[in-house]
Amino acid sequence: MPARTNAPHACPIRDVLDRVGDAWSVLVLTELAQGPCRFNALGRVVAGISPRMLAVTLRHLERDGLVTRTVLDTKPPQVEYTITARGTSLHAALGGLVDWAARHQVAINESRQVFDTKV
Amino acid sequence: MPARTNAPHACPIRDVLDRVGDAWSVLVLTELAQGPCRFNALGRVVAGISPRMLAVTLRHLERDGLVTRTVLDTKPPQVEYTITARGTSLHAALGGLVDWAARHQVAINESRQVFDTKV
Repeated sequence: MPARTNAPHACPIRDVLDRVGDAWSVLVLTELAQGPCRFNALGRVVAGISPRMLAVTLRHLERDGLVTRTVLDTKPPQVEYTITARGTSLHAALGGLVDWAARHQVAINESRQVFDTKV
Repeated sequence: MPARTNAPHACPIRDVLDRVGDAWSVLVLTELAQGPCRFNALGRVVAGISPRMLAVTLRHLERDGLVTRTVLDTKPPQVEYTITARGTSLHAALGGLVDWAARHQVAINESRQVFDTKV
């Protein structure tokens, strides 16, 4: 058996999964990939997210340099979020995974049903 | 602003993220992509995983049809896990994400430091 080289991969995998494993981050990023969006509008289109969780998610994405936050000169002031080039490249990398999920969803559900009848 | 089409994507995204967001599943799948592996050997190479968590993770992967489980005719009997074609394709789809994480890790850490000094 060849030597296994798991350790060097573990750190970047986990680092990105912290963000990607958070479904809210992926859903917000997917929305912003379609164009800039204001906070209130994001809250409406990302079904089920609370204002507090949306604020936390956007703050994480901004901290990672995946989105930028702009205070608009409106009355009352509104905040608009825009995806960055880095965020767009993450969204593209996620695309392969989302496509995979869509392609295999039916087969995975069938496997689960077969597995559950055997247990 | 164009109509946003988030809803149709949400379900497969979440379904796959349930598995991918679990870092143990990704690490175990990454190991098995290198070749079949016995339970005890997996426990040694996936650093930090407990035997119970390894068993739960492998059961989830088997249920989704991503790995197969074979009881070997040894004394004492040992169990070997092998990645399936579906598991290999998921591992490939994850590759884009892992590459992305590796390429952007340094820049993300820099963004975080800048962000934290502004708060």
